[in-house]
Amino acid sequence: MTNILVLGGDGFCGWPTSLHLSALGHDVTIVDNLSRRIIDDELGADSLTPIASPEERVAAWKEVSGRDIAFHNLDVADYDALHALLDTLRPEAVIQFAEQRAAPYSMKSAARKVYTVENNIGATHNLLAAAVDLQLEAHIIHLGTMGVYGYDGDGLEIPEGYLNVYVPGDDHEIYKRQILYPTNPGSVYHMTKSMDQLLFQFYAKNDNLRITDLHQGIVWGTQTEETRLDERLVNRFDYDGDYGTVLNRFLMQAAVGHPLTVHGTGGQTRAFINIQDTVRCIALAVANPPEAGDRVVIRNQMTETHRVRDLAGMIARVTGAELALVDNPRKEAAENDLRVSNRSFLELGLDPITLEKGLLNETLEISQKYADRCRMEMIPCVSTWTPEHRPGFVPEEIAAQDSKARQLGGNVVAPKKGFGSNAA
Amino acid sequence: MTNILVLGGDGFCGWPTSLHLSALGHDVTIVDNLSRRIIDDELGADSLTPIASPEERVAAWKEVSGRDIAFHNLDVADYDALHALLDTLRPEAVIQFAEQRAAPYSMKSAARKVYTVENNIGATHNLLAAAVDLQLEAHIIHLGTMGVYGYDGDGLEIPEGYLNVYVPGDDHEIYKRQILYPTNPGSVYHMTKSMDQLLFQFYAKNDNLRITDLHQGIVWGTQTEETRLDERLVNRFDYDGDYGTVLNRFLMQAAVGHPLTVHGTGGQTRAFINIQDTVRCIALAVANPPEAGDRVVIRNQMTETHRVRDLAGMIARVTGAELALVDNPRKEAAENDLRVSNRSFLELGLDPITLEKGLLNETLEISQKYADRCRMEMIPCVSTWTPEHRPGFVPEEIAAQDSKARQLGGNVVAPKKGFGSNAA
Repeated sequence: MTNILVLGGDGFCGWPTSLHLSALGHDVTIVDNLSRRIIDDELGADSLTPIASPEERVAAWKEVSGRDIAFHNLDVADYDALHALLDTLRPEAVIQFAEQRAAPYSMKSAARKVYTVENNIGATHNLLAAAVDLQLEAHIIHLGTMGVYGYDGDGLEIPEGYLNVYVPGDDHEIYKRQILYPTNPGSVYHMTKSMDQLLFQFYAKNDNLRITDLHQGIVWGTQTEETRLDERLVNRFDYDGDYGTVLNRFLMQAAVGHPLTVHGTGGQTRAFINIQDTVRCIALAVANPPEAGDRVVIRNQMTETHRVRDLAGMIARVTGAELALVDNPRKEAAENDLRVSNRSFLELGLDPITLEKGLLNETLEISQKYADRCRMEMIPCVSTWTPEHRPGFVPEEIAAQDSKARQLGGNVVAPKKGFGSNAA
Repeated sequence: MTNILVLGGDGFCGWPTSLHLSALGHDVTIVDNLSRRIIDDELGADSLTPIASPEERVAAWKEVSGRDIAFHNLDVADYDALHALLDTLRPEAVIQFAEQRAAPYSMKSAARKVYTVENNIGATHNLLAAAVDLQLEAHIIHLGTMGVYGYDGDGLEIPEGYLNVYVPGDDHEIYKRQILYPTNPGSVYHMTKSMDQLLFQFYAKNDNLRITDLHQGIVWGTQTEETRLDERLVNRFDYDGDYGTVLNRFLMQAAVGHPLTVHGTGGQTRAFINIQDTVRCIALAVANPPEAGDRVVIRNQMTETHRVRDLAGMIARVTGAELALVDNPRKEAAENDLRVSNRSFLELGLDPITLEKGLLNETLEISQKYADRCRMEMIPCVSTWTPEHRPGFVPEEIAAQDSKARQLGGNVVAPKKGFGSNAA
């Protein structure tokens, strides 16, 4: 049994992780300043699922499991508050989810860029500085992202954090080196996760902190074994253009009769993981800490890769939904390949839940169950990467089926060029 | 003539740079929140040279040169204030010196670590986010540090920012890549400069900002052609254990009869540049901006490398000063080699001022002139990198000359083991 502090334990990954670790017998304390709920208010968005307050959540968990989870409303970017809590709790493991985690939100405006950098870097660095100051020996586990690697696939398999390279010297010798994979973030959000890597590298080297950095793929699904136990434990489900993740958005769009909004050609290949596997991976990370003095352990927390248009086509075939090829608000490669190693978690015993295994239906069912809560106007991705980019609106007029639609296995709505401008 | 904004224009590099750019005919505006002066007050330290207030400085420059320099007391880490000023000025070039720049200060305490990260990352990111928001086309020039490369010399010459590597693929092909040199910072301060590199990489890629990052060596010397013109223009001279740079510290220690404090074995090899060359390099960088869409231009702003004990030995021979091998408060390699490319500035016409060229005497003379202002108690480096490290105190008792002293060309004071503890 480990004394675990979960920073950001009210969020989409943090909440089910907290329940799972509690169910495994760990002593769990949640810290959250509810920033995710506050940003929903700011955006006029809301979880599709009706989530209970943190206090109701932990009370329901006590009823269901007999186990206590403590909750503290605290801003991790406030150093003194975090320091005081760490001093009291002296956790053996700290899981750091407390970062602003939406790429589109991080690109929405200058103020959101500044907030994302200050909040994410501030929170993570505060944790490291306080851990050193308090001589905490806690294992620090951080939720990173596959996005730090970038998506310029070029035939190389993405390794787990470190890359073997050969460097030609000016003495004509060849030097072998193992380096941190060169980072190529695609948004301010991803940039903060890349910067976090340098924080971890330094604090592991200088202070022998034990750190695991999990480079997570795009999470899909909503419920886990624990969140299913009671309505009041339900996990959040984001479908809006800023916080919704692509696969969940497609499933929810299908459920409410909205065309599946494919950005650009849908040629982006991305890494995915089901939320149930997320919580299992974190439990595996907790159980397998590095030693003091080790370099940062980096694990790729993903289980499969898919091309976005293939996902859309698959869901369209299953559900009869239409596809809409809309403007891509992001500055990114239109098409990319992606091969990723996830040997580390497989070796620790992870048995991946893939799309094939049918949990797509569960997410569809949740989407249908709460379809009346959907705010249709929140669906488009309106945060653009530059003033030259256009938001991903579906034109009102539905174009006739064209040949692309048949290739993709659904009906295509052609993007209306010139529609919309920088809505950020 | 370029409209140039100098952020941090009251500091050791910022002030002489502002004067030099003004002397060259540019329109110069200085922004500074005087944090460097405030930290002096906090530490009980002061510039050895009596520096005038910013208002007196710019008034004196007007008298001497007939040229105007505007001064704004403003915190660059305050986004709204910076945004408003940039909107009014719309500078064509912005030089970003406004970061906390002492490695020992950044390691002095948890609070200083947090301050250094928040201030440096906040200031630099604010500049980038505001430039994008205002669609400024300014060339952004940032003072980085050689320290981002780390000092684990291993035979490779350090290139100017980018490294050619060969990556073995799992398909048995070899892929050639050019990557940002893998960073290996040795303090929280150096870490922030490494993180800045990721900010620049992203904003150059996403927003086509034109950015030059100058990886500067350790600056020595005090005066430049312009600061010499009037007593009220004198540059600051730091000799304290946090802000003093090694060569200036040795020269000043020699001038006041203090043993030259060599950390550890003095086997550290570092890159150096004279302050006069610093200001010339920045003028060259201003005159040679990248194009919009170019990757970040990285130039190594240094002119020679020396081993610390060789420098100490040289100054001891010239001045008759004693050497003291003291505890090294830093966690760093005891001995390292260092070879660095600086072809970029040489090709732009820089004619380096080396130690050979005699400016050592000028710095000695300044140290002697103001020796009565020295606060001897500020000399030791008391900021330690970890609780296991010891401050660099010289024991009261001066040991007899030993064989090491003769090897080094001076008198050695042996470090007194067990003296002092973590004074941070």
